[in-house]
Amino acid sequence: MMIIMRPGAPREQIDAVIAVIEKNHLSSHPIFGMEQTIIGAVGDGHYVAKEIFEALPGVIEVQRISKPYKLASRQFHEQDSVFQLDGFNVGGNEVPIIAGPCSVESREQILEIAQAVKEAGANALRGGVFKPRTSPYSFQGLGEEGLEYMAEAREQTGLPIVVEVMAVSQIKMMEKYVDVFQLGARNMQNFNLLRALGETRTPVLFKRGMSATIEEMLMASEYILSGGNNHVILCERGIRTFETATRNTTDINAIPVLKKLTHLPVILDPSHSTGDSEFVSAVARAGVAAGADGIIVEVHHDPAHAISDGKQSLTPESFAKMVKQVKAVAEAVDRKLVESPLHVGEG
Amino acid sequence: MMIIMRPGAPREQIDAVIAVIEKNHLSSHPIFGMEQTIIGAVGDGHYVAKEIFEALPGVIEVQRISKPYKLASRQFHEQDSVFQLDGFNVGGNEVPIIAGPCSVESREQILEIAQAVKEAGANALRGGVFKPRTSPYSFQGLGEEGLEYMAEAREQTGLPIVVEVMAVSQIKMMEKYVDVFQLGARNMQNFNLLRALGETRTPVLFKRGMSATIEEMLMASEYILSGGNNHVILCERGIRTFETATRNTTDINAIPVLKKLTHLPVILDPSHSTGDSEFVSAVARAGVAAGADGIIVEVHHDPAHAISDGKQSLTPESFAKMVKQVKAVAEAVDRKLVESPLHVGEG
Amino acid sequence: MMIIMRPGAPREQIDAVIAVIEKNHLSSHPIFGMEQTIIGAVGDGHYVAKEIFEALPGVIEVQRISKPYKLASRQFHEQDSVFQLDGFNVGGNEVPIIAGPCSVESREQILEIAQAVKEAGANALRGGVFKPRTSPYSFQGLGEEGLEYMAEAREQTGLPIVVEVMAVSQIKMMEKYVDVFQLGARNMQNFNLLRALGETRTPVLFKRGMSATIEEMLMASEYILSGGNNHVILCERGIRTFETATRNTTDINAIPVLKKLTHLPVILDPSHSTGDSEFVSAVARAGVAAGADGIIVEVHHDPAHAISDGKQSLTPESFAKMVKQVKAVAEAVDRKLVESPLHVGEG
Amino acid sequence: MMIIMRPGAPREQIDAVIAVIEKNHLSSHPIFGMEQTIIGAVGDGHYVAKEIFEALPGVIEVQRISKPYKLASRQFHEQDSVFQLDGFNVGGNEVPIIAGPCSVESREQILEIAQAVKEAGANALRGGVFKPRTSPYSFQGLGEEGLEYMAEAREQTGLPIVVEVMAVSQIKMMEKYVDVFQLGARNMQNFNLLRALGETRTPVLFKRGMSATIEEMLMASEYILSGGNNHVILCERGIRTFETATRNTTDINAIPVLKKLTHLPVILDPSHSTGDSEFVSAVARAGVAAGADGIIVEVHHDPAHAISDGKQSLTPESFAKMVKQVKAVAEAVDRKLVESPLHVGEG
Repeated sequence: MMIIMRPGAPREQIDAVIAVIEKNHLSSHPIFGMEQTIIGAVGDGHYVAKEIFEALPGVIEVQRISKPYKLASRQFHEQDSVFQLDGFNVGGNEVPIIAGPCSVESREQILEIAQAVKEAGANALRGGVFKPRTSPYSFQGLGEEGLEYMAEAREQTGLPIVVEVMAVSQIKMMEKYVDVFQLGARNMQNFNLLRALGETRTPVLFKRGMSATIEEMLMASEYILSGGNNHVILCERGIRTFETATRNTTDINAIPVLKKLTHLPVILDPSHSTGDSEFVSAVARAGVAAGADGIIVEVHHDPAHAISDGKQSLTPESFAKMVKQVKAVAEAVDRKLVESPLHVGEG
Repeated sequence: MMIIMRPGAPREQIDAVIAVIEKNHLSSHPIFGMEQTIIGAVGDGHYVAKEIFEALPGVIEVQRISKPYKLASRQFHEQDSVFQLDGFNVGGNEVPIIAGPCSVESREQILEIAQAVKEAGANALRGGVFKPRTSPYSFQGLGEEGLEYMAEAREQTGLPIVVEVMAVSQIKMMEKYVDVFQLGARNMQNFNLLRALGETRTPVLFKRGMSATIEEMLMASEYILSGGNNHVILCERGIRTFETATRNTTDINAIPVLKKLTHLPVILDPSHSTGDSEFVSAVARAGVAAGADGIIVEVHHDPAHAISDGKQSLTPESFAKMVKQVKAVAEAVDRKLVESPLHVGEG
Repeated sequence: MMIIMRPGAPREQIDAVIAVIEKNHLSSHPIFGMEQTIIGAVGDGHYVAKEIFEALPGVIEVQRISKPYKLASRQFHEQDSVFQLDGFNVGGNEVPIIAGPCSVESREQILEIAQAVKEAGANALRGGVFKPRTSPYSFQGLGEEGLEYMAEAREQTGLPIVVEVMAVSQIKMMEKYVDVFQLGARNMQNFNLLRALGETRTPVLFKRGMSATIEEMLMASEYILSGGNNHVILCERGIRTFETATRNTTDINAIPVLKKLTHLPVILDPSHSTGDSEFVSAVARAGVAAGADGIIVEVHHDPAHAISDGKQSLTPESFAKMVKQVKAVAEAVDRKLVESPLHVGEG
Repeated sequence: MMIIMRPGAPREQIDAVIAVIEKNHLSSHPIFGMEQTIIGAVGDGHYVAKEIFEALPGVIEVQRISKPYKLASRQFHEQDSVFQLDGFNVGGNEVPIIAGPCSVESREQILEIAQAVKEAGANALRGGVFKPRTSPYSFQGLGEEGLEYMAEAREQTGLPIVVEVMAVSQIKMMEKYVDVFQLGARNMQNFNLLRALGETRTPVLFKRGMSATIEEMLMASEYILSGGNNHVILCERGIRTFETATRNTTDINAIPVLKKLTHLPVILDPSHSTGDSEFVSAVARAGVAAGADGIIVEVHHDPAHAISDGKQSLTPESFAKMVKQVKAVAEAVDRKLVESPLHVGEG
């Protein structure tokens, strides 16, 4: 940490800062400049919040040198984290594809889509049963009934299932059904939920908040990791910017930046990051080209009548095309899709 | 709603859209243009999501005309909503001031600050006991113990208390203590929490999410209102932009825009919207000048040693100055501060 | 400047950085931490670009301590800069108001509006004759003919005139007419134009670029100041954010932040920063409450038929109301409007 | 255009809007809704600004249906525009690569880099001689001397040269040297410069402004096209967002969105869009995977001592690696790099 003092800050203010540095088990290194003094605080600063210095008299700015997260960092765990889901690995050389509808709408719907995405090459099935809807007047999901349909779809196809959890109170019930919890963008800083997910041992597909920085994303994932659950898959899903031509702006830079900063797997959700099925395949290809460890997309057998997110949902046919394109790009960057998709019943 | 068809969309696609419009109890009004057809959907569209049209074949865009919220809108309730808290009104001609520390740190701390802000002119006391912290390694709040200290502070000063709720599971316990729930920015789209707050009858101080649009803010407040709790106070607290000179960007435009769109009271939090105690008073004055119905600020008797948010906390002395300045500005725009602050024990 | 080395950077990389520091006449102060080394570079660093260190081997980050601008800074010139325009001061205790149409459309139009804004209390007249229009098919301004009408308006009303300059080639011709050059937001980093304005001695009303940081704004103003023209008036006119309820987001924080960082006068343009005449008065009041040294607004006698910016233009009547409101707020913050508006012929 | 009237707008306001519609040679189609009236304006609306309706009494909003640009649109010119530069095509199946330093620093530097990038597979050489620098105290470029070195580099390597133009006054002189003008991000809405480039017949590499929407980008390009110069190459170079982990945010969505909306070639500049040489290759691959028609990158033989942009410059070795990776990705999406790079002297 570097603590920058106001020009002309008196010696006693400098001493007071040094005292706080040392109280926090860091060593202090003042540099007396022409105009102002800067004090370096050296040691294991991961757990020291910069705000404890910011309001000290005479301090004008505090700059971190060490990262404010630890377990998520590549310094802490140099090798890529690779962990197994049902039938495939995440974080290794293979690039899994997760597909399915925004919402589980009915038993027939989810069974039909599950079959279709499996045939087209998906490795896991997504589908929401509790829906975070901007309007209270929109469809809010089938709840546990939907989970039963998802479980049935898994049985029929062998695909593990990924379902969004929206509240601490849902975790226990959902754990009986799901293979992967999805943490939604709107809950990325719902710290109670993060802590509770840290206490489970179910993998978490962790979506970036729509205005979260990459650093905040890693700090929030640290809530889960520090609880002992180290099966966290980070997911770029677009950020909010001034551009209105697409629903969100895919932060493609985040893929290589995250791969540098963290050992956790990083996947891309081009459905939400573009908001338009016309652009999903192009951005899915871009994600894999940039180094993403997987893709999650929305697929619906009848987007025109989907209850939610129809506009950004691929049809099974266009999804199959996307898989082929992504496969070619994966191979161009020396990776491959998951080799032998599961057989029915293996899940 | 206006549904815009792709140039050259065939008649059957147009008819299909019309069928969906009518199924939703709206009337359809196609305009056949040179290049493309536009179909107006007229009727009570508050509850019709635009996404049900977006994925229909041939549709390229859907534009709302009516607002996607109803109970929060001025059309629904033309007069300003005014409701009573302990000893003063919110939403009327008076401009209440809510002040207190970011976190309740100890019994002594909160009692001292409560007394100080009361003397300087505050009308309610804020203080967090469950803290949404970016890092899992930061202080997370005193929990129920903190609520007991807050209640004691209320008893001593007569100031009603405002405390952030972070989870559905905290509501029942907290209701015994708090006069106003604060819904934090990070939870603005935590829909489970919103619904649960809608079922209480405790007023909610509703903070704008840091990347929420004004429309999303009103739609989220609709979750609370539609549950039957119409005591919602909206709070602008800064949005996230590219500017890094301040912690957030105060969206001062949001004050008059919200006052036009909704009947709910609108207040400003200049502590979070600037992040720096040096700028709090200037922006508090600006808020009242722009028409805000109240101000909420962070005050700490010893900002240098505050556990959280010290940098943006006013001292009691600078808070007292701010109150005087805000009073002058309030009068310049034909409003006034709360006339006779409560007497001890009234709360 | 603080130069942060990669963990484990070898001694020779550290020495190479130190060599560059000393070559730039700064002194070096390495701090050898547990994980990494940080090197302080101390001295007059205003003119040293941080990028000369950024690409040195082993450097991962460079952080400035001193500001990258000098002449614009309060350190360089502690007192507020106050300078005289025709009949009033800018930057002192008085708060001048500049008003007029977006574009000069005809002789009759500008003469009528000039008279109207003068009567309502304006201290200077704005009006564009070269218009930066997003579309090439929109009205592009009357050019020199428009300047003649502006000059005639000045003669009739005594109001000094403010006109946007868009190109270096226009400066010489325009100087014969205008009292103040306006530098438009789109040209804030048109460095050729900035340099050329630095060589004139005509005051410059300098508008913030719509995605310029406050620091970039001050660095760009330094182009003008370093040319010897120190009559620069900074103008906040809204920044681009994700919020679409208003044309731009008024960065009200920028007012007190700029007043702290620079001695230059700071004014607000609520017409562009909101884009809607309904919100202009509220935000004008906010600006003055926050400490703005003046207000510039668009006024049109017939907004419905204005060629440009009609939506955000006040009528003379609503402008007169705004002036009264701004006057009350100015007095509430111990300032006042310009005392005795000029008499005809004084200009 | 759809003109939305205020609820309860009287008949005469509706009639006034209809009159303006018809005066602009469009036909009017009012829809009388329960609460409000909407008036469709049908016809060739490319050249009708929506602002002429926005300030009419009773109008609350105007929404465009037709695009505000024409010559740039795919409706106007359905096939991809392909045009020839020295030795290769832009906009066709081949993906050219443009490389070179940020600034021309000396004769030796540019000749060395030119040779290196040519050997590694570049198809054109970039290099700035007038530099838009944030600080007036930074190196501002070699001017015409630099152009002579660039011309010499072209002679030695056969690579056509791309140089940024910053002012109308530079065009004539520069035209003698350059093969392609680069229009910089900061000048994207410098309309005088755009018009002047429209009058040349030299191709223009048109960079997106850092806070320009895709629509504004196309409207600005229309200035050049409408002048008769239809050799415009659009370039995504990152936009400004809240994320600070990278210099800019690469808007990868913009690639497929632009390819849909316009016939003009679309290339990507991963050097500026990331600001860090570590991430350039990953994002270059992403760009080509997403459908970009070319890549422009900064390469310097000694980034540590580059006068500008060293941090984001690739070395010739890392550039050569990038070319190989981009080649593989291009082939994965059924495209290829330029087949036979030019021989020395061909240029």
